[in-house]
This record gives sequence, structure tokens and C-alpha cells, in this order.
Amino acid sequence: MTRSVNHSTVAMTTLALVAVWPPLTAGAQTTTTRQESCVPSRFGPADQTGNLHYVTPAKTLAATRLVTRGKAYRLGIETNKRTPAYPPRTFAITVVQPGQPLGAPIGPTRTTYNDDIITGWVGIGSQIDGLGHLGIDNVYFNCNKAADFVTVEGLKKLGIETVPPIATRAILLDMVGYFGSDPVKEGTPFNRAEIEGAMKRQRIPSIEKGDVVLFHTGWAKLIGKDDKRYGAGEPGVGVSGASYLASRGVAMVGADTWGLEVIPAEKDSGVFEGHQILLARNGIYILENMDTAEMVKDGAWQSLFTLGPPRVTGAVQAIINPIAIK
Amino acid sequence: MTRSVNHSTVAMTTLALVAVWPPLTAGAQTTTTRQESCVPSRFGPADQTGNLHYVTPAKTLAATRLVTRGKAYRLGIETNKRTPAYPPRTFAITVVQPGQPLGAPIGPTRTTYNDDIITGWVGIGSQIDGLGHLGIDNVYFNCNKAADFVTVEGLKKLGIETVPPIATRAILLDMVGYFGSDPVKEGTPFNRAEIEGAMKRQRIPSIEKGDVVLFHTGWAKLIGKDDKRYGAGEPGVGVSGASYLASRGVAMVGADTWGLEVIPAEKDSGVFEGHQILLARNGIYILENMDTAEMVKDGAWQSLFTLGPPRVTGAVQAIINPIAIK
Amino acid sequence: MTRSVNHSTVAMTTLALVAVWPPLTAGAQTTTTRQESCVPSRFGPADQTGNLHYVTPAKTLAATRLVTRGKAYRLGIETNKRTPAYPPRTFAITVVQPGQPLGAPIGPTRTTYNDDIITGWVGIGSQIDGLGHLGIDNVYFNCNKAADFVTVEGLKKLGIETVPPIATRAILLDMVGYFGSDPVKEGTPFNRAEIEGAMKRQRIPSIEKGDVVLFHTGWAKLIGKDDKRYGAGEPGVGVSGASYLASRGVAMVGADTWGLEVIPAEKDSGVFEGHQILLARNGIYILENMDTAEMVKDGAWQSLFTLGPPRVTGAVQAIINPIAIK
Amino acid sequence: MTRSVNHSTVAMTTLALVAVWPPLTAGAQTTTTRQESCVPSRFGPADQTGNLHYVTPAKTLAATRLVTRGKAYRLGIETNKRTPAYPPRTFAITVVQPGQPLGAPIGPTRTTYNDDIITGWVGIGSQIDGLGHLGIDNVYFNCNKAADFVTVEGLKKLGIETVPPIATRAILLDMVGYFGSDPVKEGTPFNRAEIEGAMKRQRIPSIEKGDVVLFHTGWAKLIGKDDKRYGAGEPGVGVSGASYLASRGVAMVGADTWGLEVIPAEKDSGVFEGHQILLARNGIYILENMDTAEMVKDGAWQSLFTLGPPRVTGAVQAIINPIAIK
Repeated sequence: MTRSVNHSTVAMTTLALVAVWPPLTAGAQTTTTRQESCVPSRFGPADQTGNLHYVTPAKTLAATRLVTRGKAYRLGIETNKRTPAYPPRTFAITVVQPGQPLGAPIGPTRTTYNDDIITGWVGIGSQIDGLGHLGIDNVYFNCNKAADFVTVEGLKKLGIETVPPIATRAILLDMVGYFGSDPVKEGTPFNRAEIEGAMKRQRIPSIEKGDVVLFHTGWAKLIGKDDKRYGAGEPGVGVSGASYLASRGVAMVGADTWGLEVIPAEKDSGVFEGHQILLARNGIYILENMDTAEMVKDGAWQSLFTLGPPRVTGAVQAIINPIAIK
Repeated sequence: MTRSVNHSTVAMTTLALVAVWPPLTAGAQTTTTRQESCVPSRFGPADQTGNLHYVTPAKTLAATRLVTRGKAYRLGIETNKRTPAYPPRTFAITVVQPGQPLGAPIGPTRTTYNDDIITGWVGIGSQIDGLGHLGIDNVYFNCNKAADFVTVEGLKKLGIETVPPIATRAILLDMVGYFGSDPVKEGTPFNRAEIEGAMKRQRIPSIEKGDVVLFHTGWAKLIGKDDKRYGAGEPGVGVSGASYLASRGVAMVGADTWGLEVIPAEKDSGVFEGHQILLARNGIYILENMDTAEMVKDGAWQSLFTLGPPRVTGAVQAIINPIAIK
Repeated sequence: MTRSVNHSTVAMTTLALVAVWPPLTAGAQTTTTRQESCVPSRFGPADQTGNLHYVTPAKTLAATRLVTRGKAYRLGIETNKRTPAYPPRTFAITVVQPGQPLGAPIGPTRTTYNDDIITGWVGIGSQIDGLGHLGIDNVYFNCNKAADFVTVEGLKKLGIETVPPIATRAILLDMVGYFGSDPVKEGTPFNRAEIEGAMKRQRIPSIEKGDVVLFHTGWAKLIGKDDKRYGAGEPGVGVSGASYLASRGVAMVGADTWGLEVIPAEKDSGVFEGHQILLARNGIYILENMDTAEMVKDGAWQSLFTLGPPRVTGAVQAIINPIAIK
Repeated sequence: MTRSVNHSTVAMTTLALVAVWPPLTAGAQTTTTRQESCVPSRFGPADQTGNLHYVTPAKTLAATRLVTRGKAYRLGIETNKRTPAYPPRTFAITVVQPGQPLGAPIGPTRTTYNDDIITGWVGIGSQIDGLGHLGIDNVYFNCNKAADFVTVEGLKKLGIETVPPIATRAILLDMVGYFGSDPVKEGTPFNRAEIEGAMKRQRIPSIEKGDVVLFHTGWAKLIGKDDKRYGAGEPGVGVSGASYLASRGVAMVGADTWGLEVIPAEKDSGVFEGHQILLARNGIYILENMDTAEMVKDGAWQSLFTLGPPRVTGAVQAIINPIAIK
């Protein structure tokens, strides 16, 4: 298959950059579609949950048995106006004291309080991509067409409020250890060889249905130190790596990077094609900006992973802070 | 102790209503303070964590051993513009498709995607109150004065990003079963007798340090059915009940109500005095609008409770969705 | 010409309602287009200003000569969270005191200050529709295609910041007096006969190039009294009336209603077809929710009309408060 | 009068910087107040309008007679996310297409439309400061105490919606010409000598009651070219200059700078003491970031000035675009 240089360039373009230079990408698609956009869920036409179906009580119960020390880890990084994010994403909170002019306390016990307002894009800091986040030609997970479920006020299907409670096994792959580079360099793809290589190195026997796979790359350390490099690229999952993970039946894939996938992208790959494979074709959720550093330090390769995304109705994504327990 | 009728009225006023009628409450405080506003943390002058210090690895490990079935519960209700909330609290999300005019796909694999923006008050739906939410005379947990840490752009201390990873035991008290009323009526206080009575009925031997105590009242069922009644009052923790729970060293207290405390408040109590006792005087976090119905149905009286609030820097509260596992 | 009942129904649907029931309208368009979507501006291919070109210094100078009493009128109504607006439009302001904890003043002269934040849809209250607001089949004024100038972050052409300074003649047509009904009933169309009839009654000899034509219907009185009726319909400009006004070369058309056009719409008309005729086909701006009551009371049929919309870059509309002087 | 060095430092601090370094300013006020904070309006205890009372029909009528050419000027600069503004002020608009998935047109005439949402601080770009913006020790114009009229949801008095229609004489003072420096250097105060000097140079006989006085300094040219210098200081009205203008009974004072007043401030002056003199003590509105360049080029020293600020209920300020006509 021959592909023009232009296409390779497009493939290397991040979604985020698209917002900055839409003309570059607007007319860049091929006239023929490389993949079917409608991929029915293996869990039936009404399914909105995808591979989280594999997180059964038995799976959860088994995961709780992985806990041997009782140490809990928070995987969320901080989200604020300085967290690197591509235009036009912005974030702010405003703290107010309703009904307390000049700090006037209320009632006999002199009550005072603060309240807060968020004005911000959800895709900043640690986040989960719901199944309605990214699709193929305006068709999303389980053949849901944008025209049928996407509105300005929220998604009518696949919203983040539909995510079931999550408590399952997490497998943490230490790509820094595997590659001997901290951080792993941008543009380094993780495909089957690298995934299995890291597993072997860490003596992890297998990836199984319903698992959460987390990649540690050291990339998050750049935040606040070299935001420019942080945002311009990243090491991450390659196209065939995404397919390999999907073939294992994982429920979620995450990393300590902003976009999970390798950037610049592999030759001949689509724009965030890994997202398409995971979210749209396989119902596998994506976790970004996961703070995996302390778990790596402790060698917490297998743990109980729990997550309840804030249930904002119709939201595409959520700012999250999963708890892993070893 | 004699207190004027006016003070009782004020005591019955919810914080939320204060925002609507500030003149009523503005001048209502007594000239003398009933309680010391500065209560040092038992964990030292630098402490921002409060009773979550009691959630040790041993505590977490023991809690994981409570899991016998592997069933996970999500305790979050949905947050959206219809979720009942007092003025001026509002909530909206906006879903957009940056760089994709008229749905134009990007690149060779025809990528399309949705992004979302939140514009809303955090105190809507399921929420955690951080230790900087409510205080006594502008002094908050561990003697932190508002003038020293509260800014329009966020809290400089006690922000929600400081909350450590939470994995501990949850004790669920079925007040519907105890009172034989579903929902429990508004204005019904839960104090020591009711708490111990419910424990006895459910054969829960004790409340211990680091526990999360959740009250099921059936109140959340009113949402969307009788929002007016839902917001005008609620059953909940009384003043001495709050002190009793604090004496047990709990880490968090929650309920399936919007404000945890009994409303109308008990005679002679302050405005949200229970919040003052829990948050400001004892470093105990508060969880509101917890969806406890399914856990009650299953008799999940003791469970592993996990929570990672989204780490928005300087935020007072967080919209949450804790995961309990039985 | 025969048109199906379904089309008439669609024609009666307001744009605002579209947001509520998009499925109804999504598939309702005919397969053939009734009108060309690309209508070049008579002022050349680079034009973004439309008929405001007719507001020449001579026109402005002549308009200032209409002032005989020196009485100024503000045509803006108030915009706030209670102003009736269709979903999902919402509006809020938040007032804060940065850097002044508990009201602490700053510096030797004890300075204190308030600041404010707007979080709201622009299409609430008194507003101007820019030429990028509404088009035909995603083609807007002067053949500008949405894909070429509309982005999530703002319009790259036709934004409200491009509006030149406006000082011209306003002609106020008293439709309440003409119809002898206050307010004029919803569904009452204003076409050539009604427009010329009102002019004759008020002894206004002619409508000329560059004029602003304002209709007084009494409809705005319903705000806060019968918001439901206010939003469900309105008297207003009909399809042929819009074309008639365009034939006169007017620069702007406004009314004391939320949408200018007659609702329910005339038989066989499109959805906001009058907007299409004025904005997209003729470069004529639209003014909504104009407070014309006092001018009518004073018989200020001809006046100097001035307007500078806040120059928010790339904005589609603006909240306005024009000043008319008699 | 002796004043400490520290006070001078404080005096040089801009309000904007206060938001960045509140600790510096928080405890810096003297224990004695230099001025009375309550200054009753000369227009009575109910007055919310201040010196705009001087804009009578006779004044307006006379101002219209100043128009000799019919040339209209827009005094607003653009407001967007790149407009320089101090933290925490931010600004964004979001453009959406409700009910039009993938650009689907509506109805038989294939209607499409854009809508927009503002999320931003009002104090960015061209703005009017209302009389509730800045005060003395939490007392604002006409002895209005913050505790009585300032709420998180908006001002209950002195809100921008109370501003009457404005059509009066503008006097433009060309300080660039007067000082022979373009721009006039930061820290250059305009007091009586400079004001009268500029008037004499431009042959403007007098400043009178109800006038709008605008200063042209060339400062606005720095926007987008040297935002750092632009924000770090400015030439402008001095303390005695503010008092002098007040003594003339002007209705408004504006400039092509972000804060009107000279920064660094004069020795011994308060923080934005000129704002206190104009807004709080004299009921004179302030206009910032006025685009006066073209008027200076044309020598439009006296003109008809019209302004209707968007009537957002309870707003402190407004983004504006006044129209001047010569």
C-alpha cells in the first residue's frame, strides 16, 4: 500500500493540534475508508459498557486477593490552570462565600463556608475517555452514530454516567525499566514485543479479560518542568499494540502520558488510531495522565484497581483519581 | 440554656437558603461565640488530612478482607442541570467537536471526536466536602484562618487535591429499617441512641477509627419526584450524633441526603453545626448524596470503601462516585 | 406549490425548540433546496459588513438632524438568569473580591473592589445577530461556508468585532397602534401591507437605505409575567415582509420580541426563513428584545440610532443596549 | 505628612497585582483612615446614577450639534483570550450549533445556525466601571455598604443595568501631542496643569458638567506588541487630576489605557485612589481601553458620545464599545 507523505504527516498530527490548525487536517482524509466505522459490540446492540462487562464479581473478588500490604495509591495528578493542555482547553475554579458579606458568619455558632465553581474542559489532567469520546467517521462504539446521540448539552448514550463501578486487577508495565530510559523517549511505540517483553521482565504471566493495563513511561515528570516537550510528543501504545491489548480482552488501558498513544505516530497510522481501536472497535476505556511513579517504586505490578468516575450526565470524559491497592 | 426564638429560626435555616435570603441571617449571630473557632489537629500543626490519618495500611488490608462476593457498588448519583440544588448553584456541560466542521473527519482513518466543558458549581449531586468547606467564624480545620488560605482562585491549603487515597471499611446504617419509614422523615435526628440502635439491629459490633459511616434514609428517592420536599429538609445526623461519631474516630460520614444533617435542625443548634463538629473541629470529611439503596437491598453492612476525589487544585469540594465492594 | 403538512409543522418550529427536539427536525428537510445557499454580497467578495455599508457619513449626519428634544432612550432590556430563554441557553454572573479576604482593604486609602465573571449564552436578553449567526445549508452571508470560518473558539470571519460603528436613522413602527391590540397577537405576520399601513398611520414617508427599522408589538411586556406565552410564539416579520425590507436596503431590523419573526410561522415558510433572507441573503443585521415602549409613548417615530456591540472577537452575537435619541 | 516607604510601595501596587500577591497588601493599610468612606451623593440618598444626572436633554441636544461631518468612531478594542489582563482574569467564547448534528440543516429552507457562550471576566478589553466597582473600606458610592448590596450573584444596587442612556459631549485630550511622546511614558501623571495644558493646546475652552473626558496616550498600541510593558504600568490621571475633573462635574473619564490612573502611582497616593475619587466620592464612571487613535488622527476633539452598556443585571462592569460621532 502506498501512502503519500502528506498522510504520514497527518498521522503524526495530534488531535490537540487539530484544534490549532484545522485547515491542515480538514481535507486530508482519503476518499476511501480503511476500516469499517460500525463495529457492533460483542455484548449486544444495546450495550454501552464494552469490556467492563468482563469485570465480573469473580474478577473483582480475585483482584481483592492481590492486596497483601494494604497500601493504597492515588493515580490522579492535579488539574489546574497550569496543567499543560492544548488550546482551546482551559481550566479555572472560582471560590466564593455565598451569603457572607465581608466574611460575616451565620447563626449562633458563627458558621462560615466556601463554595466553588468549575469552568473548564474535562480533558485536562487525569482523565478517563468514555466510549463516546472518539470514533470512526462519526460512528462511535457499538455503531452509535453521532447524529443520533451527540448533542451540545451532552451525550444521550455512552455518557460517563453509564460507566459501571470498577474494581478489577491492574497490571502495571514498567516501560522505563524495560527500555532503560527515564522517561522513555517520545515516539517509542509499545507493540506486542514490547508489552510481552516488559511482562516477562516483571514476571507477569498473562494479561486477562477485564484487566486494566497501565504503562509507566516517566513522561509525567515533564509536567511543570518541560511542558513543551511533554505536549509535543510521547511514548505509547502503537497501532498493533492496541490491537494486541484488545485481543486480550482488557477493560481499560492507561499510561502516565497525556494521550496514551505513541506520538509522533507510527508510519501509515491514522490520527489517534489506537483510540479508535480501543474505544470504538473494542469498547475499551482509556486512562490518561495516570500517576504511576510510586507504584513502580514499590514494584506494585499487580493490584486491585478501583475507579468511580464522577457521574456527570452526558459527559464525554471525566477527571479522575483511581485508587490502586497493593 | 435559654435561646431566643430568633436563634432557633436561624438554626433551622439551611446554608443553601442563606444564599437566597442573606439579610435574614446576616445580622443574626450572637455577639459571644459559643465555641472556640481554633481547634488544633491532633495530627500536628501542619496537618491537612485529619482523620484520614487513621486509614493505615493495616486498616486498608483488613477492609479488603471484608470482600466476600466481589460485588462492587457505585455510590454516585448523577449530576446534571436537573439535579436539585439551591440557588445560586447551577450546572451545565457543553459538548463540542474541535477542528471538525460539519463533522469532517481527520486523517486517513477518519478520526472524529467529542470534547466537553463543565460550567458548574461543585456542590451538586454526589460530593465530598473537603476540610476547607465549612468552619467556625472564618477559621477552618486545624486553626486555618480564611484570610490565610482562601483566595478567589482556590484554597492554598486544605484543597481537595490534598486528600490521600482512601480505601477503608464502610459501615452502612439502615435508618429506613431502624425507623420503619421509607424515607425517614425530614427533621429526624440521628444521635447516639439511633446510631447504636441501628448498629444493634444490623449486628454491627462497633464503629472504629478510620471507618466511613454511611446513613441510608431513602431520601434520595425524592430526587426528580419531589424535588421541593427533597430540598426543604432531610433526616440526618444531629449535633450530639456528630460528636459521638467524632468520638469514635471515624474518617468520613455520609448519607443519601443533600446535607447529611437533620433539617429542620435541632433546637438550639447552630447552622450546620454538625458540619462544624465534623469538618472543622475533628477533621472528618462529609459525603453527600450517596446512593446507598442497592447496598441496603443486599445487606452490605460492611464493605471495602474506596474513593479518589478528582484532584482539582485548590478546590473546596469534589463531585465523587465512591466504589464500595462487598 | 404544494407542501406537505409535515413541512408546515416544521416551519412552525422555532430554532429554540430545535434544541429541545432535534429528532423531529433532523430529518425533516426536503431533498431539494428551495433557494441558493450562496448569495454574494453586493459589496464584493471580501465584504463582512453587509448593508451597514449604507450607513455613510452623510446618512449619519442627516440622522443627527432628527434630534429635536435631546431625549435619549436605552433599547436594552435586562439580561439575567430569569430572562426567558429556551434551553439550553443559561446565564449567570459571579461577583468576587480578589485579594480581599473577609473584605480586607488594600493600601493607605483602604481600597476595596468587586469584579465579575459572566458565564452565559449570548442569545439572552437584548441582542444583535451578527451575519455569522444564521445561514442556508451551512453557507452564511456572502457565500461563507461554515467549514471555512466557524470554529469552536469563535468565528474567523463575520464575528461581531467586525461590526462598524453604527449611527443612523431609526424608524419605529407602532404595530400595537396599527393593529389596535396590545400586545399584537402571536402569529400575526408583518408583511408589506402591514408595514406600509403602519408607516402611513404614523406619517412616515419612506424607508431608506441604511435605516434601522424597529417594530413595537408590546410583546416584551410578557417577560416576567407570562414567560410561557412569551416564548411560545410572537408576532413579527413575515417572509415577504423580510424581502420587502431588504428591497428597501435597510441596515438592521429589530423588534421588542425574542426572535423578530412571526411564530407560528406562515404556511410554507422555512424555519426562521426571515433570518435567512435578512442575514444570509442581504447582509441585514437583526436586533431582538428591543425596549421600544417609551419611544412609542413619546411618538419618537424617527430618531438617531447608535450602537456599538461589545467587540468580543469571533462572537456570533452580542448583548446590546442601543441608544436612540430624539 | 510622613509616610513610610512601605506605603509608597503599596501605592504603586496595582489592584491587578493584588490578586497575585495578596499577602503584600493584606496587612498594609494604615490604622487610621485618610478619608471618609461614606460620601453622600449630591443627588440624594436614593441616587445610583451619580454625575450622569448632568446629562440632561439640553446637554444631549447640544452635543448632537457638535456633529459636522457625520463620521462615527467605535471606541471599543477587541476582547478575547489574548487581550492582556492580569491573573486571575480569563476570557473564552465557545461557538456551538445546537440541534444540528454534523451540520444537519433544519426544515424546508435548510436553516443552519451558530450560537455562542461567554465564559469570562468582564474586566477585559474595553470596559466601563460601574459605581459599585471600587470603594473605600467596603463603602461604595453614596454610602452603600458592601454588606448591604454585594452578593455572589450580583450587585443589588449600583449594577450596570441602572446606567441611564448616555448621549453627551466627549472631550478628547491628546496627551501624546501635549507631551510629544508616543506613547506617553508610564508613570506620567495627568493633573490640573497637564489637563489644562492639553486643553489650551487643542483650543478646548472648558470642561463642563456632564462631559465625558477621554485621554489619548498611545498606550493601547502596546497590546499584542509588548503586553508586559502594557500591563506593568501606564500614564494616566493623578490624584489631584481626578479631583480637578470631579470639580468640573464630568460624568465619565476614560483613556486608552487599562486602568486610567498613572502607574506607578504618585508618591503618597493610595491604591487606585483616583478610582476612589471618581467612582466612590463623586459618582463619575470610568472607561478603560478606549480606542482613541482614529479620533486623534482626525482631530475630533469634541464629539457626540453615546454609550449603552449591556444591561446585565447586577453586573459590576460591562464590556463596551461606545460610539463617538463628529
